[in-house]
Amino acid sequence: MSSLSQPTPSWGAADRAWMRRALGLALRSLGATAPNPPVGCVLVRDGRLIGAGRHRFCGGPHAEIEALEDCRSRGEDPRAATAYVSLAPCTRHGRTPPCCDALIAAGVAGVVAALADPIQDDAGAVLGAAGVAYGVGCEAELARQLLGGWLLRVSQGRPRVTAKWAMSLDGLIAGEHGPHALSSAVARMRSRRRRRRFDAIVIGAGTAALDNPQLLALSPPHPARVVISAGAVHAPPPRLVATINQAPLWLVHSQAAADQNLNVWRAAGAMTIAVVDAHDPRQVLAALADRGCSEVLVEGGAQIHGAYLAAGIYDRIEMDLVSQTLARGCSLGAGGMLVPQDWRLAAPPQVYNQTVVSLWDRREEQR
Amino acid sequence: MSSLSQPTPSWGAADRAWMRRALGLALRSLGATAPNPPVGCVLVRDGRLIGAGRHRFCGGPHAEIEALEDCRSRGEDPRAATAYVSLAPCTRHGRTPPCCDALIAAGVAGVVAALADPIQDDAGAVLGAAGVAYGVGCEAELARQLLGGWLLRVSQGRPRVTAKWAMSLDGLIAGEHGPHALSSAVARMRSRRRRRRFDAIVIGAGTAALDNPQLLALSPPHPARVVISAGAVHAPPPRLVATINQAPLWLVHSQAAADQNLNVWRAAGAMTIAVVDAHDPRQVLAALADRGCSEVLVEGGAQIHGAYLAAGIYDRIEMDLVSQTLARGCSLGAGGMLVPQDWRLAAPPQVYNQTVVSLWDRREEQR
Repeated sequence: MSSLSQPTPSWGAADRAWMRRALGLALRSLGATAPNPPVGCVLVRDGRLIGAGRHRFCGGPHAEIEALEDCRSRGEDPRAATAYVSLAPCTRHGRTPPCCDALIAAGVAGVVAALADPIQDDAGAVLGAAGVAYGVGCEAELARQLLGGWLLRVSQGRPRVTAKWAMSLDGLIAGEHGPHALSSAVARMRSRRRRRRFDAIVIGAGTAALDNPQLLALSPPHPARVVISAGAVHAPPPRLVATINQAPLWLVHSQAAADQNLNVWRAAGAMTIAVVDAHDPRQVLAALADRGCSEVLVEGGAQIHGAYLAAGIYDRIEMDLVSQTLARGCSLGAGGMLVPQDWRLAAPPQVYNQTVVSLWDRREEQR
Repeated sequence: MSSLSQPTPSWGAADRAWMRRALGLALRSLGATAPNPPVGCVLVRDGRLIGAGRHRFCGGPHAEIEALEDCRSRGEDPRAATAYVSLAPCTRHGRTPPCCDALIAAGVAGVVAALADPIQDDAGAVLGAAGVAYGVGCEAELARQLLGGWLLRVSQGRPRVTAKWAMSLDGLIAGEHGPHALSSAVARMRSRRRRRRFDAIVIGAGTAALDNPQLLALSPPHPARVVISAGAVHAPPPRLVATINQAPLWLVHSQAAADQNLNVWRAAGAMTIAVVDAHDPRQVLAALADRGCSEVLVEGGAQIHGAYLAAGIYDRIEMDLVSQTLARGCSLGAGGMLVPQDWRLAAPPQVYNQTVVSLWDRREEQR
């Protein structure tokens, strides 16, 4: 625990390794905890893990509480342990009692957080007053990547926005059967699996009407399915309605939309969300952030991607480069965009049966 | 040599390994031997390489002759050796005497060829009559890939055509400074290095006028630089003219082009090649095949790629996926194309400083 006493600690390999365990747990909760952040926690004593937990859903126990329960259920005593937690423990009553109190009561010797909580920034004071050592910033960069959406939402009122499209070798997206029909079956499976990491998945009215998609993850938790339709002139797609008990269906519309159109969606079980102008990506995203969405996936088609690219609001692009040149299709970029943007590969490209999947982060300096 | 006696030999690991050595030598000559095929040869006795050679340029010694010379210069005797050669040795007098005669005179015990020569198919008979064992088909698939352009030219009168473009994440090619300006410096370097494998490199009149490119390889041999311009209304680009002593400059034009325009090119040192309609990709490629080009690289821009894609005549696509979304640019595919085409990754994608380079072969079943 020596590094805890330093104001800007240089973390040792063991500290970082335990924190990555906690971050790994947090990653499993990404997309499941809105509006809360995904948090993981491990309790360690004498170089041995004695408890682990994560925050699984909003209203459920926080990661620290689950880790303490796990510790006791193993017959271990958390006293004198160090808690590694991906976000500073809460100090105030929310839906659950403050985690700092629970950690102090359990007698832990120290707490290491990857990031400070921008909302409740007094964990150090509370823990210190109780004689618990506290350090923050261990594996902070990894944590910032993981919690990027939540941090954007609480600091800027917008979610992290990931664009997803499949593109042919000649640069066209979609065909007549939606963007994903282009990708190989295994690449489509991968896309469906990844949807669970998002709080909401967004499509435009055109894609909704043409493709009648389902937009579920491969397994729960499913994201909220969001259709953007300024006038709500089309009825909700049947497959979205048929699966409404598995995942919510939201309609984001302009205030001017006719009530009779909106009532069709409401009658089908959809929540309707009014913004002044649903064609403005910033208004749509702010409305989703207001509903607690930190991680938003935009799945297309060409019209919505064109508009969102032009607005420069994508944080990530996940692209399937497919093994086809196309007869028909749409171009994303033609015209419109204000400035070119630079991106950086988040990882080496992966090949899924002839589909080259690459994930790109917007270069920070351009934000 | 036991496998040589079988009519459809199943080649052993040693035979295949030696043939890959010969093919490796041939690969070094790809793009350097037009109108001849790139051929490599190794001489092996008692499991030991005693001579190696390749055909380096049209008019120079064939691979077998160079291998025999290499053998003797090492102080070795080619008698009773086996010659592995990537294409069946020639039997007739061309620019040089027949290689079969030289191999027989040298006393080799056997000859293994990867592929039969579709023009001179009597190597087996000639060698057999002299008591030299002969087998064909060892690593034939690799050889067919390597010699694909030459085989297409001698059998179908057209070259193998590779398209090269750089595309933004939103599917646009080119900007204001040509397709390659998008790629990272190391990816551009790689493209320049690969140009040496081609007999000709093709651009359209628009790219020539706008980009004023040089189109040289990183090192010799350089491909012929071919500008397609139906009317030849623009003068030849200065940088192509300035480098005309390093690599030929060809203009492919329609018969209707005005002589005064053509004379500007001729005065600059360019060869002018007339076809009925230079807008027809097949006529252009047939004219290049007539000039001995087996491997042709088309570097764009959008207009020529669009037309050539629509004609369905690309055999390979080499694409740089660059780490940008673009403000301005052209879409390749918009409209036009007759049928979608399927492609197959020739190798795993490579990343060159944020540029994802992928090489695609057209799926055979669609030919």
